[in-house]
Amino acid sequence: MALRDELAGITSVLDGPASAYLNDSTEIRGLHGRADAVVAPSSVDEVARLLAWCYENGVPLIPRGGGTGYAGGAVPLDGGVVLTLERLNRVRSFDPLLWRMFVEAGVTTGDVRRLAREQGLMFPPDPGGAEQSQIGGNIATNAGGPHAFKYGVTGKWVTGLEAVVPPGEVITVGGPTRKDAAGYDLKSLLIGSEGTLGIVTAAWLRLVPAPEAAFPVAAFYDGIGAGCSAILSILGSGLEVATIEYLDGGTLEAAGASFPVEMPRGAGFLVIAEADGSASEAARLRDETAAVLGEGALAVTAASSPDEIAALWRWRDGVTFAVTALMGAKVSEDIAVPLDRIEEAIAETLEIGRRHGLPACSWGHAGDGNLHSTFLLAPGDPEALARASRATDDLLEMAIRLGGTVSGEHGLGVIRSGWLSRQWGARAVELHAEIKQVFDPKGLLNPGKKTA
Amino acid sequence: MALRDELAGITSVLDGPASAYLNDSTEIRGLHGRADAVVAPSSVDEVARLLAWCYENGVPLIPRGGGTGYAGGAVPLDGGVVLTLERLNRVRSFDPLLWRMFVEAGVTTGDVRRLAREQGLMFPPDPGGAEQSQIGGNIATNAGGPHAFKYGVTGKWVTGLEAVVPPGEVITVGGPTRKDAAGYDLKSLLIGSEGTLGIVTAAWLRLVPAPEAAFPVAAFYDGIGAGCSAILSILGSGLEVATIEYLDGGTLEAAGASFPVEMPRGAGFLVIAEADGSASEAARLRDETAAVLGEGALAVTAASSPDEIAALWRWRDGVTFAVTALMGAKVSEDIAVPLDRIEEAIAETLEIGRRHGLPACSWGHAGDGNLHSTFLLAPGDPEALARASRATDDLLEMAIRLGGTVSGEHGLGVIRSGWLSRQWGARAVELHAEIKQVFDPKGLLNPGKKTA
Repeated sequence: MALRDELAGITSVLDGPASAYLNDSTEIRGLHGRADAVVAPSSVDEVARLLAWCYENGVPLIPRGGGTGYAGGAVPLDGGVVLTLERLNRVRSFDPLLWRMFVEAGVTTGDVRRLAREQGLMFPPDPGGAEQSQIGGNIATNAGGPHAFKYGVTGKWVTGLEAVVPPGEVITVGGPTRKDAAGYDLKSLLIGSEGTLGIVTAAWLRLVPAPEAAFPVAAFYDGIGAGCSAILSILGSGLEVATIEYLDGGTLEAAGASFPVEMPRGAGFLVIAEADGSASEAARLRDETAAVLGEGALAVTAASSPDEIAALWRWRDGVTFAVTALMGAKVSEDIAVPLDRIEEAIAETLEIGRRHGLPACSWGHAGDGNLHSTFLLAPGDPEALARASRATDDLLEMAIRLGGTVSGEHGLGVIRSGWLSRQWGARAVELHAEIKQVFDPKGLLNPGKKTA
Repeated sequence: MALRDELAGITSVLDGPASAYLNDSTEIRGLHGRADAVVAPSSVDEVARLLAWCYENGVPLIPRGGGTGYAGGAVPLDGGVVLTLERLNRVRSFDPLLWRMFVEAGVTTGDVRRLAREQGLMFPPDPGGAEQSQIGGNIATNAGGPHAFKYGVTGKWVTGLEAVVPPGEVITVGGPTRKDAAGYDLKSLLIGSEGTLGIVTAAWLRLVPAPEAAFPVAAFYDGIGAGCSAILSILGSGLEVATIEYLDGGTLEAAGASFPVEMPRGAGFLVIAEADGSASEAARLRDETAAVLGEGALAVTAASSPDEIAALWRWRDGVTFAVTALMGAKVSEDIAVPLDRIEEAIAETLEIGRRHGLPACSWGHAGDGNLHSTFLLAPGDPEALARASRATDDLLEMAIRLGGTVSGEHGLGVIRSGWLSRQWGARAVELHAEIKQVFDPKGLLNPGKKTA
C-alpha cells in the first residue's frame, strides 16, 4: 500500500491488522476502531515528521497511549494513522534529590511510580491500570484516581511538556522549573486535550517525598444515606485523608465476595478513607478517621500490615472488572458533582437504571464528588445497549443539573462528544472550538474527539 | 466629557484624576499610567456591559485588582478605561464543611485567608500585600508566595471561574466541582493571563484544613555556597517543609537590623524553612529540619510561640520595603530557575550588578527556584535607571540560559513584554498570539501587556 510505504520512510509501521491498537475500554460498549496504518515512532523527531506528513497529505493522526481509556479517546473512528507512543519510553533524566523526573510519553504510569518509590519519592496520580497506562495518556486525559482527593490530578504534577503540534513542530512549554508565570498556560491547555491539540512526547514531572505510612480504613453502612453522611463527616471534621472512596450496594454485590475481610450482613455501602503521613501521624489520623466513620457504621476495619493494605487496593483496582463480570458488559460514566450533591447523584443513578430497565450501580472518588455510574447489560444485546445509551443521556443531564460535569477524569473522548455544549454556555463553547482551530486548523489530530 | 457620560450610564465613574488607580509597584521604576476614566462596577452585569461598550467603541479596558503587582500589568499605558474590581467584593457562598468558597474578584486575599482560618481552614496562596491585593488579581497573575513550595500557586486552588470575555459576555468554566475533564482547560488559560483574555469576576476556591501548627526554622550561613548547600540538603533529606525561603547577604544588610532575634556575626545568607502539620508532626519536622539546616550554619533559630512566628513572617513580608529603603528605589525581577541552578543564579545576580555598577541582592522562594533579583538605585536617577534596565536584560537572559523562566510569579506585564519570544520557540509564541486573537480580536483588553 502506498500509504504504508510512505509512512515506512518515516518510522516503523506495524504489520497486520494491529487490532490491539484500535480499541480501548469502550470496546465493551460496541466501539471498534478502523485505521489505515499503525505506526510506532521511537523519537520525537519521527513524531514531528509523521505529523508533518499527515498535514501535507490530509491524513488523520490518532495518538495513543496504553489504551486504557474509558471514553474512546484513542479509538480511530474512520481510518487514518494510529500513532502509538510505546517506543518513546525513555526516562530522559531523574533527579531524586531534586524531586523531579523527565520522561517520555510512553513510560508506563506504573514505572514512573515505581522509580519514584525506589528513591523514597511519590508520583501521586494513580489512575487504574497503572501497568498498561502510559504517562502521555494520563496527561492527555488529565487522569485522576483515588489519591487525587489529597494530591490532585495528573496535571498538578506536570511542570513542563514537550509536544508535537501541527503542522509538525516540536514545542516546549515549561520545564524542570517549578513555577512559571511568563506565558499563557499552554501546558494546561495541552493537558486533558485528549490528543486533539498536539501529541505530548515527554513531560517533566514533579515528585514529592513518599509518606512513610498509608493506612486505609474501610467502613460499611446499611445504605446510601448513612454512607454519604459519613463522607461528609470526614470533611466536616477537617480530617485531611488521602482518599475518600465509596462503593454502593450494587457494586458491593458484584465485588464484595473477594473483599479481603468478611463483609458485615446488610452491608449496602462502603467507604474507604486512607490516612497517610509519617508512621505516627498516619496512625493518629487513621484512628480519628475510624472514629468518625464509625458513627452509624455496621463495621469498621483498618488494614495495617503492608500485605493487607496492598490487598485492599488491589481489590479496589479490580472493582471495575468485577462489575463487568456480573452480566458480561457495562456502560460506565464518570460524572462529577459538587460534594453536597453526591448522595442525590448516587441515588439517582439507581433511579435512572430502573427507569430504563437496567441494573445500575456506582462507585468512585467520593471526596472529589466523582462517580463511576454504571449500567449493566449482557454483551451483544443491541436493544439493551440502546437503553443504556438513553440512560447515559439521563445521567449526564443529571450531572449538569446538579452543577457538576459530564466527566471528572476520563474526558469527552467520542463517547461524550457533543455534551460540552450543554454544560457550558455558547461563548465558552465557541472559544473551545476556536482554540482547536488555532492548534489544528485542518482538524487532522484525533478527529471526532473532544468536540463540544 | 462624552466618554465619562456614556460610561456613567453603565456604571460608577470615579471623580477626578483617580491617580491611585493608574500605577502599581512598578511606579518606582518610572512607570506611570494614564487613563481616560476609572470605573468601579459593582456587578458582573455592569462589567459585561462595560466591555461590550468598549468593544463597540474601540476603547481599551484595563482591569485592576489591588494594584500590588510588580510587572505593570494593571497600569494603563495609553489611555482607555481602568476598571477596578474593588466593589465586586461579596462572598457569594462559603461552605466550610465542604472546604470551598465562592468569592467575587475584589475580595482581598487577606479576607479570603481570614475567613477560611476562622473556620479551621486554609487558603494556602500567600503573595505579599495580602490586605491590599485582591483574589482576582492573584488569579490574573497566578500569584505565588512562600508557601507555594508545598501548596502550589493560586491556580491550584481555583476550581472554577466566572469571567467576562469579549465582546462582552459572561462565561463560567468549572465551578464548585473539584475535578473536571470535560473541555479544554479554559480556566487555566484565564489564570495568569493578566487581564488580557478576560476579566475574572468571581472564583470558586478550594480550601484545606489548616495545619494545627507551623514552625519556621531560620538558619544563617556565611555565604551563598553554604546556604545553597543547606537548601539542597533539605530536599535531599526528603523533608517536606511548607516553605524554603532565602535571603542573601545584601538583603540581610538591608533588612537584617529588624530581624526578630539577633543575627550572628558574619551572616551572609539566611534560609527560612517552615515545618507544618499537626502539633506533634510539625515539631518533629521542625527538629529534623533544624538538624539538617544546622550543618554548616553559623546559627539556627526556631520560632515557636505564635508571637515569634508572626513576627518572623511579618519581617519577611517587609523585606521588599527594607531593600527599597536602602537607596530609595529598586528594580526587582522574579526569575525562576531549576533547583540545581539556584546557587549560580544568586551569584550571577551579584555579578550582573557589579558589571553595571549597581548594588545588587536577591531573596525569594528557594524551594521553587524563584529569585527576587534586585538592583538598587537612587530615585530620579535616569542614568542609573538605564543601567538597571540593561542589568535586567542580562538577568532575564540568564534565567533563560539556565533553563528557567523570566517570571516565576509576577507575570510578563509590560515590564517583561517581549521576553517570551526568547524563552519559547517560534511556534509556541505563534500559538500564544493566536489565543489572544481568539479571545480578544480587537486587542482592547489590557493592551500592551503579556505580549510575547
